[in-house]
Amino acid sequence: MRELTVALGERSYPILIGSGLLAKPDLIVSRLPSPQVMIVTNTTVAPLFLDRLKQGLDQRAVKVAEVILPDGEAHKNQETLALIYDALLANRCDRTTTVIALGGGVVGDMAGYAAATYQRGIPFIQIPTTLLSQVDSSVGGKTGINHPRGKNMIGAFWQPQLVLADTETLTTLPPRELSAGMAEVIKYGLIRDLPFLEWIEANIGRLMACDAEALSEAIERSCANKAEVVAGDERETAKVGGRALLNLGHTFGHAIEAGLGYGQWLHGEAVAAGTVMAAELSRRLGWLSQADVDRIRTLFAAAKLPVVGPALGTEKYLDLMGHDKKVLAGKLRLVLLKGLGKAVTWGDTGKDDIFAAIDACCKAA
Amino acid sequence: MRELTVALGERSYPILIGSGLLAKPDLIVSRLPSPQVMIVTNTTVAPLFLDRLKQGLDQRAVKVAEVILPDGEAHKNQETLALIYDALLANRCDRTTTVIALGGGVVGDMAGYAAATYQRGIPFIQIPTTLLSQVDSSVGGKTGINHPRGKNMIGAFWQPQLVLADTETLTTLPPRELSAGMAEVIKYGLIRDLPFLEWIEANIGRLMACDAEALSEAIERSCANKAEVVAGDERETAKVGGRALLNLGHTFGHAIEAGLGYGQWLHGEAVAAGTVMAAELSRRLGWLSQADVDRIRTLFAAAKLPVVGPALGTEKYLDLMGHDKKVLAGKLRLVLLKGLGKAVTWGDTGKDDIFAAIDACCKAA
Repeated sequence: MRELTVALGERSYPILIGSGLLAKPDLIVSRLPSPQVMIVTNTTVAPLFLDRLKQGLDQRAVKVAEVILPDGEAHKNQETLALIYDALLANRCDRTTTVIALGGGVVGDMAGYAAATYQRGIPFIQIPTTLLSQVDSSVGGKTGINHPRGKNMIGAFWQPQLVLADTETLTTLPPRELSAGMAEVIKYGLIRDLPFLEWIEANIGRLMACDAEALSEAIERSCANKAEVVAGDERETAKVGGRALLNLGHTFGHAIEAGLGYGQWLHGEAVAAGTVMAAELSRRLGWLSQADVDRIRTLFAAAKLPVVGPALGTEKYLDLMGHDKKVLAGKLRLVLLKGLGKAVTWGDTGKDDIFAAIDACCKAA
Repeated sequence: MRELTVALGERSYPILIGSGLLAKPDLIVSRLPSPQVMIVTNTTVAPLFLDRLKQGLDQRAVKVAEVILPDGEAHKNQETLALIYDALLANRCDRTTTVIALGGGVVGDMAGYAAATYQRGIPFIQIPTTLLSQVDSSVGGKTGINHPRGKNMIGAFWQPQLVLADTETLTTLPPRELSAGMAEVIKYGLIRDLPFLEWIEANIGRLMACDAEALSEAIERSCANKAEVVAGDERETAKVGGRALLNLGHTFGHAIEAGLGYGQWLHGEAVAAGTVMAAELSRRLGWLSQADVDRIRTLFAAAKLPVVGPALGTEKYLDLMGHDKKVLAGKLRLVLLKGLGKAVTWGDTGKDDIFAAIDACCKAA
């Protein structure tokens, strides 16, 4: 078992990574303030892992309740959130009850947000079961739901007590979701860790073949990068750099997700195509070479990720990007690359350059 | 102008108390991270004070948007909250926009919760316009909405940047609401400040006649008490005492509010009757004398507050109290009085004693 710490003072917590951790309930029980939990999962994950988790907790006399949500980003909304609140109230959960998120990013975001806001905040444990959530969304405390007018517009920072990443859960993951997770793995290399980027390029074959050791290494190095960034900028308030750098490709990507309707493209797929746009824009600013951009495209393609955006129309891209949270005081701020392994936040990009970068990287309208 | 500080480290903020502060926009403008605000108010308060606030901000080139909510505790719910989110999104408010709550406790709780959760948290200023909100709900960072199954069940701790209590707004307050605020003023004396309790007893006539100087004194001493308690226990995590003491009378009171349906009794009215129940229970435990209980009843009566609860039936009281957030790991914890000016949290009360205290203090079913 590998162990990392997210260093946030009194809100610090461990990330445990390894094979078969779901079958070790003591890792969880030792961190519960009272022997009552509410497991939040979904219709896809429940048949695979819920019984294993429940049995272990039952055997240790933990009172277990559960709520099973419909699966998918399309359900990351107020109505689904209400199902969690209703279950917490129906089971008379109090401030010492721990919410356990068992599933991917959507389950984690919603369970975490319910934990952040039920009775003004109760304890929370993340058990991510997708590569994307193991390397990204389960670490760092971002929780929330979508609003019809924008992704993650309603939410809270709420740190878990523990993140438990069982690599065994990845063996049941559909190939498309493995690829989506790889988009964020590659992101860590691109924004701040060139040696890791080179390691991914050298090992992309093993990773895509689900080699357990390669996946563990990728998860650990991804989480270590994320933990460092989060520790330096917990609430994304840094004016330059900081946590915003984790959003490489995300402003373009959110436009893709919103423009197509949430749930059409996976988040990681949108981030991949969005990162190519950000790289193309960086090239136009003279920061990346054509060879750098080609190298990024090649790696995403090897991870079976899209490198071309959908045909939304350039104006629509820009309009949807204006609703993104990276807009500060009316100005569009983007995460761009000064080089491979070196991301920056940049608020001074001309509209024409953004237009041209989108045009060059999406299908014709 | 009187000024207090709520000492919460990097989340510290001032409370300004005085007459005519609404007409001094610089107090607000100096604390805005960007010149954009969203004023949240309601249909009752807007005609009285909204223009005054807007004009001052307009003159200082602040971009002002507003959302006017329906008035009343019955609207402190998800649907009304959605109106605030919609307004924030429609006005393209970003993370530097400041939400200003202009109104009573319901407006403050909902505006604060919207600020806590819009884009994972944006700045927030409280301008309370009722006595209750000036002495209680605007200070301390509790925000939230009701759930059909329980009051304030969904919420967050979110500290404002500033609390601005303009005593001039109290001149338009209906007498019933002045009384409701007085319940919380009296509470501070009862739980931790016997000299203040004696001052209130000596000045209840002036207070009920809306004497400006007496009201300012009462607000300042109430806020000073609350600020001290909050500074010592920001998130109500203290196992003994701490912030929970502010809930004297509230567990019984919540049962009254929920049992009658929110909005029938004012919060302060329910707290007054609930405090009498808590005092009666304290007497049965041998901690208060009959004379103490009578003294409490007399003071509430002088403030034109109910000292007898409605006829819900004792079982229903207990059932509704079990849903209160003061339940820890299944055990009913109450705030009781060891003496006048000395509250304690107590988890060891027999059901029979609670039954008897309720019976003695409510109308026959």
